[in-house]
Parts: sequence; C-alpha cells; structure tokens
Amino acid sequence: MTQHLQITKAQTLKEKPEVAGIPFGSYFTDHMFSMDYSAELGWHNAAIVPYAPFEISPSAQALHYGQTVFEGMKAYNVNGEVILFRPDENFKRLNRSLERMSMPKVDGDFALRALTELLKLEHDWVPDGEGQALYVRPIVFANEAYLGIRPAKSYKMLIVLSPVAGYYGAQLNPTSIFVEDTYVRAVRGGVGEAKFAGNYAASLTAQQKANDLGYEQVLWLDGVHQEYVEEVGSMNIFFVRNGELVTPELNGSILPGITRKSLITLAKELGYNVVEERIHIDDVEKGIKDGSITEVFGAGTAAVVSPVGIMNIHGTDYRINGNEIGEVTQKLYDQLTGIQTCKLEDKQGWVYQVTSTVK
Amino acid sequence: MTQHLQITKAQTLKEKPEVAGIPFGSYFTDHMFSMDYSAELGWHNAAIVPYAPFEISPSAQALHYGQTVFEGMKAYNVNGEVILFRPDENFKRLNRSLERMSMPKVDGDFALRALTELLKLEHDWVPDGEGQALYVRPIVFANEAYLGIRPAKSYKMLIVLSPVAGYYGAQLNPTSIFVEDTYVRAVRGGVGEAKFAGNYAASLTAQQKANDLGYEQVLWLDGVHQEYVEEVGSMNIFFVRNGELVTPELNGSILPGITRKSLITLAKELGYNVVEERIHIDDVEKGIKDGSITEVFGAGTAAVVSPVGIMNIHGTDYRINGNEIGEVTQKLYDQLTGIQTCKLEDKQGWVYQVTSTVK
Repeated sequence: MTQHLQITKAQTLKEKPEVAGIPFGSYFTDHMFSMDYSAELGWHNAAIVPYAPFEISPSAQALHYGQTVFEGMKAYNVNGEVILFRPDENFKRLNRSLERMSMPKVDGDFALRALTELLKLEHDWVPDGEGQALYVRPIVFANEAYLGIRPAKSYKMLIVLSPVAGYYGAQLNPTSIFVEDTYVRAVRGGVGEAKFAGNYAASLTAQQKANDLGYEQVLWLDGVHQEYVEEVGSMNIFFVRNGELVTPELNGSILPGITRKSLITLAKELGYNVVEERIHIDDVEKGIKDGSITEVFGAGTAAVVSPVGIMNIHGTDYRINGNEIGEVTQKLYDQLTGIQTCKLEDKQGWVYQVTSTVK
Repeated sequence: MTQHLQITKAQTLKEKPEVAGIPFGSYFTDHMFSMDYSAELGWHNAAIVPYAPFEISPSAQALHYGQTVFEGMKAYNVNGEVILFRPDENFKRLNRSLERMSMPKVDGDFALRALTELLKLEHDWVPDGEGQALYVRPIVFANEAYLGIRPAKSYKMLIVLSPVAGYYGAQLNPTSIFVEDTYVRAVRGGVGEAKFAGNYAASLTAQQKANDLGYEQVLWLDGVHQEYVEEVGSMNIFFVRNGELVTPELNGSILPGITRKSLITLAKELGYNVVEERIHIDDVEKGIKDGSITEVFGAGTAAVVSPVGIMNIHGTDYRINGNEIGEVTQKLYDQLTGIQTCKLEDKQGWVYQVTSTVK
C-alpha cells in the first residue's frame, strides 16, 4: 500500500501547557493523523489534520459493540531530537489486536511514516523535562452506522498526541496493590492479549474497589483458577526472586507488553537470569514472607517501571523492600530510560530517530 | 430528577423504507433522544433532536477504553397503536449495566417518558407487518476527552430507532449452531452479565469461525471449565428436555435476558416445569442422542425466539427435531408474540401503551 499523506495545518496553534504536574492524557497537540477504511477502498484518506472533534454516527458500531483497539508509545525529546522507542513493535501489536478483534490490519510501515511526519510537525510539543514525553496514541475503531452484530465494514484510525509527565506523577514512588480475587480482567480464549478498548472498561470497577480500600492498583489473577498472577493495573508485573527476574508467561490473557519484552532483554544483558512461568499467588505470598522475593514492579509504556511497595494478598498487607525502590528495579529503570533518552548505548537498535535534525 | 425535555423537529423527513427484507439495524428514523452527563450537572440537556451525526472528541474515552453499555427493545404497531414490551425491565437492566461498568445511572422513569415522547413523534415509523417492529436502541457512552484509565466524568445517552423485519429474516427458520470450545465470551467475575458493548466485539472472531465452518451461530461455554452451556450468539438458550423447559441458571457471566425471563413465566403459565440449572455440554449431547432433549431454541429481543435445527457438539452435527420447529418452541413464540402484539391477553401487565390513540 503506497498512500499519499495529505497535510492540512491548523490555522491557529494552542498555547503549550507546563507539562510538569498535568494529568496524564489531558492535553492534546495541534494536529492528529486520520485515515479511513471501507470495504471497497481499503485504508484511504490518510491525512494529518488539525486536532479537533469529528462527526460520528449515533449508530457507529464502535459505540454500540465496542470494536476498538489502540496502542501507546512515547516520543522523547533528546537535545532537540525527537525519538521513538521500538515503534515497529507497537504497530505489529496493533495488527495482532486488529486481527483478534476481526478488524482490518494497517500497513505498519506506512503508519510509522505517517507518525514520523506528524511528530516532525509537532516537535515543539515534545517536552524535554525529566520523565516527560509526548505520549502517542494510535486508535482504530469501527464507524459503520449499523446495528447488526458482525465485524464492521468501515473504520477510522487516528493518532493523537499528548504531552505527559510521569504516569503516576512523581516517578518511581512505590505503589500499593490489591490482589483482586473476585473480579476478573481476562480469561484464556478471551481478548486479554489484545490491546482492546473494552478490556480497560472491564477493569474499572475492580480498580475503584482497590482505590476505595486504599490501594493504588489492582493485581489481576487468571480467569480460570483465580490463583495465578497476570497483570498489575494496566501493566505487566515482575518479581525479583532469589536474584532472578520472574514474570508471568504470556498465556493469551496477558497483554504482551513491549516494555516487558525490552526489560527481559535488558535484564539478560545485565546478567540476570529471567524466568517466564506461571506464578501462583500463594507462592508470591510465601516468597515475600520467607524473603526470597525482594522486589516487585509493574512495567508498561505509560509508567515505564513502577515499583510496588505494598501488596495486599488474601487480606494481609505485605511491605516489599521496606516500601522502597529496589536495586534491580532501579537498575532496569535506569537502563531502559537511559536507552530511551540516548544516554546509554542502544545496542539493540531500539531507538527510532524521528528527525535527524529537528527544524 | 425532573428534567425538561426539549424537542427540536427535523426540517425534512426521510422517505420510509420498505421494511420487509431490509437488514437489521440499517435504517434509522428522523429523530433521536439525546442527554448529557457531567460530574457537575448530572444528567442534563435531555432533548429529542433530528437523527444526525454528532461531534465527538478524538480522545473520547468510549473510543479508547470502551466504556459503553446499551439496551434493546421493540416497539410494535398494533392497529395504529404503538406499544412497548416491559420497557421498565430494559431501563432497570440498563442501570445494572451502568453500575457494573462504573458509569452513572439514569432515571429510568424519565428515560421511559422521553422514549414515549420520541415514539409518539415517530409513530409513522413503527411498521405493522408480520414480525416487524421499530427497534429501540438506548446507549450510554463515555465522551470525556481524557486518556487516563479511570471512569469518565462525562457521558452521552442516546436512543435511536430502527425499523426492522425479523432479525434472521424469515422468522422461525431453524438455525445451525457450533459449540465453541476455544474462544470464550465471558467468565465469572467479568462483565458478561452487563449489556456492555465490548462483550459483542469480543464475540466476533468466534462468530466468524462458526460462519466459516458453515454454522449460523456460536454456542458459548463457560469461561472457567469450557464445559457448561451459557448463551447462543447474543441470545439466551433453552432446551426442552423430557417435556420440561431447561435453561442455564444466571451465574454472572450470562446476560439476564428479558425475553428469557418472560418465557420462563409464560412456560410456567402454560403448565411446563421450568428448570434453571448448570448444564454440561456432554449432557446436552447425551440428551440429544437418547431423545430426552427434543427441542433447542435461542431467545432474545431481536429474534424473539430462534429454533435450533442443527448443533455441532465436539465435531459431530446433531439434528434436532428433524431440523424443524418444535411444538413447545412454536407455542412459546406464539404466546410471547401474541402478547407483544395484543392478540393474547396481557395477564402480567407487560404491555406498555405508548399512545392511547395515535395522532
């Protein structure tokens, strides 16, 4: 697919906010990418346009039957240079999510080229403060006006951009998590491994429950036994156990995180043994009690790495590493963000240069 | 909540289609109901407006995180009189769905009053052909422009109307169903019992698989064991076993259908014993083989009752009642549609008169 990319610039530009301290995903830049799909034309109308509300039918299938998938990545400002971290992985996963939800795939190379043009246009929006980035949100949703239940015949893809500070505000402050054993996020045979919009709506009640109980995040157990560790909030989870890095194996209901995948590679490079396995929550409890589990952290694009300081398992609060950031967690965070901000060598070729020289 | 209902009439009216043979949910009437919610104002801006596309933010939470629920009911034209069937039940279920998805409840009485006004305005759209109706689709979705993962702070409710023939075209033709033992629709602890948009997107791949294999509908098994019968397509399922009516008990992952509930009442009135229990798929297979299961049918608003003629279980095709409509199925269908079209006495007070005299 070789597509023309139409560019229409905004007539007036917005004032840029002070990024430090603004809530995640609440400000948007001047432009967005937009592309349409119809059964007849395939993907077409690729364009960079002013960020603005658009018209949707009251009977659009995304609203009625939830056919929507998305992606998330971050653009960093490194001395005026805009870079992305493994964007090819995001577009590959987008296509896997689209496939799982019976939606048409996009040309990942073209999408990345379009994103590159968008970021060049918006480079002044890429913040350069510590932990700050321009969050990149591709989304594809069904917009056919039709109420029969079947895959839609028309879709829209958008990429919107939002300047963000760290997801949890002051980064690397340990969070508290509640192990949820009533509500379930996903089950094998379901859509847990897709970055499907509905997975997030389905998590809100449990998230509220955890918040009401005084915890920041939910730790999700598997849907079949409600015994095996899956994810934490909207992140993958890692444990440091006897000096090894341990994380749940991908099983179809766990989101295959790109941060997860990158941390596994980096940990191995740093000499850690990495174990991907089915992890029983009782073994986590035992490990924390007997001191074999020394660190716990979440990993995802938004927060990068998020240490867990308190974990409520079966009604008991456990403090992990004295509610302090652990050594391995800190090392992995430094390593990953070091590469993402070009302070450390990019041995794997993960860094994608949006602009060789901005402006 | 006493709200004013603003009415803005369309300047031009559409030509009404020939309802027989049009696809379900593809035509919409001239007007719709619309209402907004904000954390500050609660539900407000209740209005009947021309059916038309509306503006939505590219960052609207419904599109990104899928916070959307809906309802479905039918308005019937009985000798020029417009009637609804148990609409109070739909608005009650809407509120249960809203609660499960961490969304603000609506005033069911007010919503029904608004729907009544809308139907009065659109009474010429309510078709009077056999099996025809005006499908009523209330929907509530998150429209806050915000990418943090938490319940949204603003929502929109719409009610759109669509003239429909029978959902499966020629009604009461037996369908073929494929018992799905890989993909899962819902699991206990999840959102299966909510009329949540994402449940439908999550069902599409299995539906396609069944179609590719030559079957019309999927029979869903439970998410934990993948052994117990849950739903068929987007309907509840019933069996006639040794002359009794048997249906899966509501367990949190099955949608509590209003047609299901009504049929249970009617079957009891007609003298049938009704059993709600956990039903193992192997027992279904055994029952079909030994002749104790004589009829199978789906039940839901769109199709009302949909007999199952062929059922593929564990790779074997079973014909049910010679791929003909069964006697009990037909009797229940006649009874239910008889009440819905005022041909039979409405002992339960299920019929809601929209207009005592239309015009």
